[in-house]
This record gives sequence, structure tokens and C-alpha cells, in this order.
Amino acid sequence: MASVQVSPKDEMLARFLDAAATGNVAKVSAMITHSSSLINESGENGWTALMLGARNGHFKVVQTLLTNGCDKSSVNKSGQTAYDIARFWGHKHIASLLANSRGGNSHHLLPSSGTEGHENYFSREYLNRMSEKRTDSPWLKAKQSSPASVYILFFNLNPLVTSGADGAGESERDFKLCKLRWGTVKELLTKPGTTVIFLGVEKQVKFASQPPVEDEDGLTAWFALNAEDNPMEDLQFPSPNCFFLKSTFPALLQLSSDEAGVIAQARSVLAWHNRYSFCPTCGSRTKIDEGGYKRTCLKEDCRSLQGIHNTCYPRVDPVVIMLVIHPDGDQCLLGRKKTFPVGMYSCLAGFIEPGEVIEEAVRREVEEESGIKVGPVQYVSSQPWPMPSSLMIGCLAVAESTDIKVDENEIEEARWFTRQQVIDVFTKNSKPAFSMAPRQAIAHQLIKHWIGVNANL
Amino acid sequence: MASVQVSPKDEMLARFLDAAATGNVAKVSAMITHSSSLINESGENGWTALMLGARNGHFKVVQTLLTNGCDKSSVNKSGQTAYDIARFWGHKHIASLLANSRGGNSHHLLPSSGTEGHENYFSREYLNRMSEKRTDSPWLKAKQSSPASVYILFFNLNPLVTSGADGAGESERDFKLCKLRWGTVKELLTKPGTTVIFLGVEKQVKFASQPPVEDEDGLTAWFALNAEDNPMEDLQFPSPNCFFLKSTFPALLQLSSDEAGVIAQARSVLAWHNRYSFCPTCGSRTKIDEGGYKRTCLKEDCRSLQGIHNTCYPRVDPVVIMLVIHPDGDQCLLGRKKTFPVGMYSCLAGFIEPGEVIEEAVRREVEEESGIKVGPVQYVSSQPWPMPSSLMIGCLAVAESTDIKVDENEIEEARWFTRQQVIDVFTKNSKPAFSMAPRQAIAHQLIKHWIGVNANL
Ligand SMILES: [Zn+2]
Ligand SMILES: [Zn+2]
Repeated sequence: MASVQVSPKDEMLARFLDAAATGNVAKVSAMITHSSSLINESGENGWTALMLGARNGHFKVVQTLLTNGCDKSSVNKSGQTAYDIARFWGHKHIASLLANSRGGNSHHLLPSSGTEGHENYFSREYLNRMSEKRTDSPWLKAKQSSPASVYILFFNLNPLVTSGADGAGESERDFKLCKLRWGTVKELLTKPGTTVIFLGVEKQVKFASQPPVEDEDGLTAWFALNAEDNPMEDLQFPSPNCFFLKSTFPALLQLSSDEAGVIAQARSVLAWHNRYSFCPTCGSRTKIDEGGYKRTCLKEDCRSLQGIHNTCYPRVDPVVIMLVIHPDGDQCLLGRKKTFPVGMYSCLAGFIEPGEVIEEAVRREVEEESGIKVGPVQYVSSQPWPMPSSLMIGCLAVAESTDIKVDENEIEEARWFTRQQVIDVFTKNSKPAFSMAPRQAIAHQLIKHWIGVNANL
Repeated sequence: MASVQVSPKDEMLARFLDAAATGNVAKVSAMITHSSSLINESGENGWTALMLGARNGHFKVVQTLLTNGCDKSSVNKSGQTAYDIARFWGHKHIASLLANSRGGNSHHLLPSSGTEGHENYFSREYLNRMSEKRTDSPWLKAKQSSPASVYILFFNLNPLVTSGADGAGESERDFKLCKLRWGTVKELLTKPGTTVIFLGVEKQVKFASQPPVEDEDGLTAWFALNAEDNPMEDLQFPSPNCFFLKSTFPALLQLSSDEAGVIAQARSVLAWHNRYSFCPTCGSRTKIDEGGYKRTCLKEDCRSLQGIHNTCYPRVDPVVIMLVIHPDGDQCLLGRKKTFPVGMYSCLAGFIEPGEVIEEAVRREVEEESGIKVGPVQYVSSQPWPMPSSLMIGCLAVAESTDIKVDENEIEEARWFTRQQVIDVFTKNSKPAFSMAPRQAIAHQLIKHWIGVNANL
């Protein structure tokens, strides 16, 4: 407010940009009708209405601007297009709209894997789970022996992989899943210690014009197998380049996004079978049903057979993971466990208890671990974490107190880090004050999200 | 945009209100310094900067305005104060700040039960769980036999209640938990089929000035008991007015908010014990540890005893429940199960599967049940649902298609209802097109939230 003397034209542009930034579609639309040249004009730092709409997640604003012929190739003073901005801020559908649009209609809301913005590792749904097929035994049986079907193999819950250095795709990818065929695994399938689950079908349907491996219905089914004993000798055509990962973590973080999503599903369900072979209600043995998504007690009069009981279905453990922001807005709270590598700090986290909502779980865990009291809590994103079967629910939280008192049973230390210290870790500009969880961890993404939140706009 | 000819004064007010509505604290602050009279002025429909800040959840804007002496008693043309608006929109901390403020500092961020806005039923944390005490056996033992401790009793997972018509408190409350003392339950505690869990301590600490029932440390501990056989004859001083609820639903929805929160915790944990008495890994018997929050396998060499396994801890099942909005923004998708009362429709819902993020679970469930494709998903709030132990994660979702194709195994029917039809159900103004889940269900709150979203501002 150095001066309130601004030209009517500047004033109008400011209001137009405000309307786009705040999602006021009616106003954006009316102002374009009144003054069409506004549509591509930019304000501070070269930000156009399209960029502001994209930044703030206003799908309809972006759609309206595109429909009215807005230039989506403009860049701001940081060289970012509206598409870059939408991706950075995690507005996948807007990024998708910007990537696909000629004009822009509701079909562009559909996320398409090629144009999505950031998503958490383990989160991609490469397969369509087709849960309705789990109870369709003839279909499942036919798919199991189909030469087109894909099998991924686990031994002690570690997947069979090969070196991923084929240059095709993401540079971070060190391992690739070995995709086996029915001919290779059919002996193994008959062994008593083998667990088979149906994962789903590839979302991209292949039709008969691509023989010979695809099925008549064009659906390529995926299955996961876990073997109790080393299964290599039971494979019909073992590949010399394939090996089982020796440790789950961090090796499991070195897959492509598509394969990480498949592993998240497969490993969680297989780990459940591995731990839940007996009926918890009566202690009897159980059998596998519904393509691996159910275990049924073999004792005829067991209570678990009357009605629907969660004892029969895979377990998912919800966990809260949160970045706590200092009341001054310029520091965040990170903690370290004794088991962390030297110098590493990360977000606090803990299991949600029975009878607890997400926000209260955040407050309880933060106070228990660090002594810090938390006020407002905001959900950001979630991530499956298949070790064995967690759902990480990522939040930002605002602290109401600042004195740290660590529960040493839970964590070794907790500290406030300044925004600049965090930025230094990301930019590697100077000697960093700490190291961070890898990008595949939602903790990393939450911290990045926070840095973005106030550093821009 | 009927005219762009507005007075500089109006223009300045418009920008000031925009700054408050969009959370631009620096601008709000600068403009007050420049022109202090702005602070209490109102724009369209009598909305002041304070109301706009409160509406949009901008805590710091509200804080800044209050610090600068803003009048918090003004009302808009609907007769709402900023406090009313903050409550309505679920910004609890702002409501709390507005209710408590003289000036406004960070302590007011702390939610206090008396001034919170809407919260979901079963969500209130009346007790501090004090999980660190679960492993403190001497403390637990002392609290168990303390005359100050409170016991709530279950038989077949149904709580012991009395009629709640004492006129004190919420009008909807039909039942009150019977709070028993150690003297009453001590015989029952020794019976083999009885499960005891520690729930926590009352958040409001009572000190020695209030003898005789409180403990030396001022902490009133709560325990829950579940009995296998009707426990009334084992009680030392049974009260003639107490009875066990005969059915869980909907009777469990007729408690006070404080008691509903306690029940959510107690019933979920007791239901887990009821279903998980045997070790799922080896089928052996288990024993209860850690105040009822752990079960340990009694077989010495069981795998579940090496490391930490989820088999030993209570289960929480995450569920997505979503209100799907039509692409036109003016209709919502509701479905009905065969078991619903005639005419009742509600939100779609389903369990989150292993390896799935919240947003993908929403998309999968909606498509499976109704054939509708969903794009953007927004988290709104969560709710524990202790039947037996779910965490309902409530979302709004935007549809990308409109043709309904119901999976009849899951639901009986799904329909688009117009905003007006939904409003009619809430206002009971005309013959409603359908009936809705009760206010205690998060589905009801999601629908209400949606009606609010576009009806105002
Ligand atoms: Zn059983
Ligand atoms: Zn065991």
C-alpha cells in the first residue's frame, strides 16, 4: 500500500487476477466478456490468470480461460508455464487439463497416467483391480493358465527383480520386476506353501490385433505368488538375470512408479496371508478365497462365518504422518529415531488408534513424541506403505507451543529447523543442517509441499 | 462487471475484503495501517473482512483484525457473526479464537471443548488416552482399585446405560452411560470371561480440594469392561435404572458427544478382543497386555514375538465415504442399500484396500458401485465408527461421467438429486424427495457441507 493511486486499467487487471486466484469463475468469465485482452495479461512476476488459477487448484477457472482461447504456453519470471505450476502444486487434474486441452471439457478431468502431476511413490494404480472378478472362479481359472497373464514372484515377501538399467524410463529406477508367464510358474503353483493372489488387469486394454500373447477379451491379468521355500528350482524357465531383493528397504524404493504401485498392493496382501493363516476368532486353520482377498475359517461353527467379519479380510493400518509448523510459520519440527542414518531427520508419525479421527491422532502423536501441542491440522495426501500394510495419511499441522520435550522411547531427538535450513537441503546450495528421507517417502513430499506453500504467492 | 466505474473508496474496500477472503495477511495489515476505518466496513450482503477471513479459514487474518480492534459482534444480512460463520464452516480454531479473544494470541489456537464448531459424532476425545501409562503396571493397578476411577460396562459389546432424560445437556441425548466404581465391579473383574481395558484419564484434572473421590494425582482414570455372560449378578451394587442397550444401532447414536467419543474408543478395542483371541500367525491362545492395547501370543517360538507385528495390536479399518458431485455442480449422487429404511439415500462408501491411496479408493468404489467416473477428490473430515472399528474418511468428489450403472450386489439404486431436493430435506419445507442418514452419520455432515459450499459466498 505504498500508494493507492493506480490506473483503472491496473486496478481492473488486479481484480481479474484476484478473481482467477480465488476461483471466482463467474467474475473471470464476466471480465473476459467485457475486456477480452485481460485473458493473457500478467501481473507481478509475470503470473497470468491461468497460472494463478492453476496454482490455486481452480479447475473451472482454468477451464473457462482455456475455452476462451487463453495462451497456455506463457511463462512467468521463473520460466514456469501454467502446466508446470499445476504439476508442482499437485493439482493433477488441472495439469491433465492443460496438457490435453484443445478447448477443455469434462473428459479432461479424467486423470491419465501420462499427464499426471506429482503423486506419491507406491500410489500409482497401474492395474484395474476388477474386484468383481475375485468371485468369478471360472474366469480366474482361465486367466491363471492364460499365456498372456503376468506373474510376479515373491520369496519371503521380497520380489524377484532384474537390473533395471535398460535406459528406458525413469533414471532413478534400479530394479525391474521380473514378469513371468504361466509356463514358467505352473509347477510352483501346485506346491503347498505357495500363495497366489489376483492383482487385476492392465488398464490399457490390448486387442486381438496384437497376437499372440493377449487374451481374447484383451485383458492382461496379473497375479502375485509368494513361495515359502526358495522357488527358483521349481521354475520351468528360470532367467539367469533375475534375483530376489535381499532386503525390503530401501531396495523397494528403486522401482518404476508403475511397478511400485503393483508392489504396494501385492506385498500388502501377501504379508497379510503370511501373518494371518489362522482364524483369530477360534484358532483354526483357514483357506484362501476370492482371488486372495479373503480367508475363510475351516471350523464349521466358527462365529467368523456368521455375517461379515474383518477377521476374514486383509488388514490396512492407517498411520498419520505430519509436518508440524512453528507458530511463527518459518520453522518446522522434525525428529529422528535411533535407527535413522546419521544426520537424518523426518516427520513425526504414528498409528491411528481405535476411536480416533485423523486430526486427533495427529495431535496425540505429536504431543506424545515431542511435547508440542498442535492446533489446526490439514490433510495433504496419502501413500500406501507396504511394510507390511500401512496407509500413510500425510498432514500439515500448526503448533501452539514451542518447547520440545522428547519421549525417548519413541524418538531420539526432535528439533525446529528453519525454512532456510530446509531449502538448503533441497537445493544443496550450502552445507545442509540435516538430511532428509528420500523422495519416495511421503515425509519428503510433505516437507517439499510446505516449502512451496509460503515461498510462492 | 456491469460497470467498471467505481469510486476509489469502494475499490479500496473491495481490495481489502479480497485480501481478507484470500488470506493475504500482509495486505490486510498494511491496509489497516493506511486506512483504519476499513476494519469494520462491510461489502456485499453485509460481510466484513472478519467474516470473510472466518469463512475461508484464514486464522492469521482473523487474528490480525482482532488485534487491531475489529468489532467481532457485527452481523451480516443473514444475522451471522464471524463466530457463527467460522463454526458453520468447520473452522474450529477460528471459532475458538473469536469466542475467547480479547486480543488474540497463539494460545487461542488450542481447541477448547466449549467453543468448538461442528465435530462428527464419535469424534470427541473426552479422555486423554495417556498411552505411556499402558505399560506402567503399578500405576494401572493402583488406578484399577481406586475409588475415583470410572468403569463402563459392556455385555456382548453393548454398553450399560440409563435413561438420559435429566434435562442437563443436549436435547437429543436419550441414553447416558452408567459410570460404575471399583467397589461395584471388583467381583466381576476376577471372572475369567471379563476383558478390561484402560481408556485414559479425564482431560479436566481435579485436585485434592475436591475430596473425597479424586485421586492424589488429580487424574480420574476410566476403564471399560466386557463380560461374556450377563454380568448383572456379579455386580456388588447394581442400579435398578441401568440396562444394556439391546441393539447397537441406532441406539448407540443417542448418547452425548462426550460419551459417544468414549464409546467409540472402548467398543472398537473390546470388539477387537472379542474377535482376535487367538494368534493369527500360529493359532495359539494369546494374553492381554498394555492395558488392553496388545495381545501377546502364548507360544514361545511364535514368529509374532520377534519384532513388531500388527497381529498384536488393535485393528482399525479405513473406509472412504464420499459425496459425488455432478459435473454441473448442482446435483449429487446418493445410493441406497436394500437394508436402508424406505426412502433413505446416502453417500457411497467402501473399505480402502491394501496398496490404495484415499483418492483412488474413492474413484474405485464409486465406479464399482455406480459406474460413475470420478476426477478430483477432496478430503473433508473423518469419523470413528465403532461397528466394529472403522475410520470413516469423508470426501467430496467430482464426477466426470453421469450415466449410472448400479452394481446390484453392492447397492439397490443410485440417483442424482438436485441441490434443491437436498435443501428441501434439510429445511423440511416441502415434501422431501428422500430421507437422509441421521446427523450423527458423517454422510449427513458431508451432504450438509456440500449444500453450504456453494450456497454461500
Ligand atoms: Zn474360526
Ligand atoms: Zn502365535
